[in-house]
Amino acid sequence: MEPGRGREGQVEPRLSPEDAAEARKILHAPEVSTDDTLVHDLCVGPCLNTMKCGEEVLARLANDRGLSATQPALTYLEQFLEALPCLFHPVENPSGFIPLVVAQNDLMGSVVIKELVSRHAMIPDDVVSSISGYDDFLGSSRLRTSLAAYLKSTFMRDVSEEDVTADHIAIAAGAGAIIENLAFLLADAGDSAILPAPYYPAFDNDLQVRAKVTPVPAPELKNFPDADGVSPAPVPTPASLAAAAADAVQKGTKPRMVIFTNPSNPLGDVVPAQNVQECMVWALRNKLHFVSDEVYANSVFDAENAPPFVSAAALKDAAGREAGMEPTEVDEYVHVVFGMSKDLCVSGLRVGCLYTKSQHVISALRNVSYFCGVPNPTQHALAALLDDTAWMKNFMETNFKKLKESRDAASAALAVAGIQHTRATAGLFLYADFTRVLKKHSRADEPTFEHERALFEALFKEARVLVTPGRDCHHPTPGWFRVCFAAVGVKSLEEAGRRLKRFIDAI
Amino acid sequence: MEPGRGREGQVEPRLSPEDAAEARKILHAPEVSTDDTLVHDLCVGPCLNTMKCGEEVLARLANDRGLSATQPALTYLEQFLEALPCLFHPVENPSGFIPLVVAQNDLMGSVVIKELVSRHAMIPDDVVSSISGYDDFLGSSRLRTSLAAYLKSTFMRDVSEEDVTADHIAIAAGAGAIIENLAFLLADAGDSAILPAPYYPAFDNDLQVRAKVTPVPAPELKNFPDADGVSPAPVPTPASLAAAAADAVQKGTKPRMVIFTNPSNPLGDVVPAQNVQECMVWALRNKLHFVSDEVYANSVFDAENAPPFVSAAALKDAAGREAGMEPTEVDEYVHVVFGMSKDLCVSGLRVGCLYTKSQHVISALRNVSYFCGVPNPTQHALAALLDDTAWMKNFMETNFKKLKESRDAASAALAVAGIQHTRATAGLFLYADFTRVLKKHSRADEPTFEHERALFEALFKEARVLVTPGRDCHHPTPGWFRVCFAAVGVKSLEEAGRRLKRFIDAI
Repeated sequence: MEPGRGREGQVEPRLSPEDAAEARKILHAPEVSTDDTLVHDLCVGPCLNTMKCGEEVLARLANDRGLSATQPALTYLEQFLEALPCLFHPVENPSGFIPLVVAQNDLMGSVVIKELVSRHAMIPDDVVSSISGYDDFLGSSRLRTSLAAYLKSTFMRDVSEEDVTADHIAIAAGAGAIIENLAFLLADAGDSAILPAPYYPAFDNDLQVRAKVTPVPAPELKNFPDADGVSPAPVPTPASLAAAAADAVQKGTKPRMVIFTNPSNPLGDVVPAQNVQECMVWALRNKLHFVSDEVYANSVFDAENAPPFVSAAALKDAAGREAGMEPTEVDEYVHVVFGMSKDLCVSGLRVGCLYTKSQHVISALRNVSYFCGVPNPTQHALAALLDDTAWMKNFMETNFKKLKESRDAASAALAVAGIQHTRATAGLFLYADFTRVLKKHSRADEPTFEHERALFEALFKEARVLVTPGRDCHHPTPGWFRVCFAAVGVKSLEEAGRRLKRFIDAI
Repeated sequence: MEPGRGREGQVEPRLSPEDAAEARKILHAPEVSTDDTLVHDLCVGPCLNTMKCGEEVLARLANDRGLSATQPALTYLEQFLEALPCLFHPVENPSGFIPLVVAQNDLMGSVVIKELVSRHAMIPDDVVSSISGYDDFLGSSRLRTSLAAYLKSTFMRDVSEEDVTADHIAIAAGAGAIIENLAFLLADAGDSAILPAPYYPAFDNDLQVRAKVTPVPAPELKNFPDADGVSPAPVPTPASLAAAAADAVQKGTKPRMVIFTNPSNPLGDVVPAQNVQECMVWALRNKLHFVSDEVYANSVFDAENAPPFVSAAALKDAAGREAGMEPTEVDEYVHVVFGMSKDLCVSGLRVGCLYTKSQHVISALRNVSYFCGVPNPTQHALAALLDDTAWMKNFMETNFKKLKESRDAASAALAVAGIQHTRATAGLFLYADFTRVLKKHSRADEPTFEHERALFEALFKEARVLVTPGRDCHHPTPGWFRVCFAAVGVKSLEEAGRRLKRFIDAI
């Protein structure tokens, strides 16, 4: 098996320390001149000997875009790669690393992949003989029809049937590809996107590396863990979005969209429908697209303790009325992102999905989805699986049960260490409050993000536990960490709790 | 079965005439203002009522990138879509359309897909249970190893073994994704790429729609069909590249790369190694990347009558010496594109491949390939197929035989109609000289591209034969058409010949 990695781990899983150092050198090197001295007969390209930075390596990708792509997407990649070959095992490697940074559900993945792989051989002969060639780059009508039915029967059950059909679905190689496509189609380079913070750390790379859209965090701090140690996640508000948009405009970028993640990564909780709608009304009034990332919508494993999940697709009409917009106009501004990676536990399948009623977006996607198509056989096998409602029901029930067990183990582990956290009713995360620990570790009354980084490194080196720093999630204050609980086993979570307690007691 | 379509057919296979008209309206509408009047509390987005064009539809994707993505990638899309539901069949639909515009090999596709689909179920259990999660976005080391061995044993046999390993391979969702990634990584928006012309019509969309790299054609006219009616294809020369680069610089763009297709689409012939090397030396001297698109390298079906095919990977060291470049430096500038769509007849599989010794490009691809990943199961099934050398040998032999039969039928059909063409030893095309027909049809001594378009439409309406206009391939003079012979049967080709003759006799 090759190193698995989270959506977070998208850059350079085998990055050597030398390579990492070189990448940083590239990143921090002086800007490359674009005014090249002419040499040779035409000398139209950048010449090595005219590089102002003096670093020969820079000449290799001597354009801004090439250089920025070599930047690691996440600050903790080096540690993650160091941990990978030496993972904790209760018997074989009791002192191994426990990486709690991968936003991946490994609890049911092999079951789903096994089923999908076997379903390839069950594709009917007439289909097999017809799928060698190009198909619609929105995705096969077969898969789009199955996905529409699956969405309608699960988290879009509140949307009317005629509003969730194959015509409203587009497929691409992962939810990341969908997000990037939307950034391309709804904004120009230099425009910005408003994101309620804390948010999924890799959005920064997804939006910037090729689409060149600037993410602007809209921090939201209400409702963070109370005295009981566990509390609902904070919810985004129009006021926080408006402040971020004003900030963006002030900095000279033109906001084009709000990217809203519900259930939240990293908060692990459902945003109440009322709050989603308020934010959507604000976006619509300001003619901003409302991109609702609902990749955890079918991972609400503890619905009893969460607000009812309502998709943005079910809220848009009411929001539109409130914003004074015609229904057909609203349809152009609300888009829902889904994918198989999280809720179907198969990030390695690379199938993402967009739901939108905007036929203009659909039309543009028919063009650009050419660059991120999904294999026809995969589409057909996946469609067959989604259509098997008995199998899917059973899978989802088992998945919820396993997620709850892991959440409970992670919650108990943090309790052992005396660390408060959000209640985690959905998704794969607890968002944990280490501010007391940070104060103790930094010996500072008002610790900084540098202190947070030092704590992260101490946790890695001394406790051999790897957690995502809040700074990476654009949390406005230092001391918060995201804990992913579905990519390791319960024994790892228990051991992590014991180690965290020992670490905290010792500082 | 859903409408199949060529790489050409990437946009809107079900584009209604209304949609097409709307798309054109969008394209030709006045530019959208980016200075929006402020309304609402923040009014950071574009407001419908401030659109200068007066077309409400424009507000839907009110940014330049979104608008440009709705542009059809090819001029003959509407006709192709009209033809699809009414295709020629010798018995059932003898007057049906014969579309010779799809760069797709349908002669062996179903055989390969059948084999691939069945190989999914043969993936070993330990692999199945380990591939649900994220893997290296360069592609699994399993598939990269198999691809390296396949390249080395076929069209890269002249490259030393240590130079074709998994470390030099990157995978993405199709060769189009590889091309786009290179355009991103080797150039900035507004930079340009030099392409020997005539060239593959969809390069324009591939380079421009998201990467915003300007294609600059370098027309080459030597060696076009002689009096015998069949001749070797013209070959690109440093002089034509230099002229195009000067033109690009004059127009204010900075050339960054040459995109060289060998064997040529649309010419259907192999470029002699000597010419490839001369062009590469010119590119290296000017510090331009040399991107060699070799997606037809394993479709040289008539090697006896073609110059020996030599990959750019085998020529780079000699070219580098001639350009006075260190070998490690040369490695940063030469990149070879390959894919499964053409030579493995499975465009619906969406697997492309880059060969490069530039570890800087590889490193950057580890990041951006996240947006165009290939499913893990597909990677493993494909690797198993490539490793089965007996199966692959048999497949390639049969494929070459079938391609030759189709080429012969197409060549004979053109001969019936008295139309000269390039000799077509490789790939899926004949490039045909309709200039005499154009003169007759247009009744002009010096016909224009508008006359060529009129001829294209007459051929479509009257002969019900669809061929790719030379203008789309950036042929410098009117009257040439590309004829794809591997996406229809021999009977269709014969019928096309008879219809072309009747059409020409009647004008």
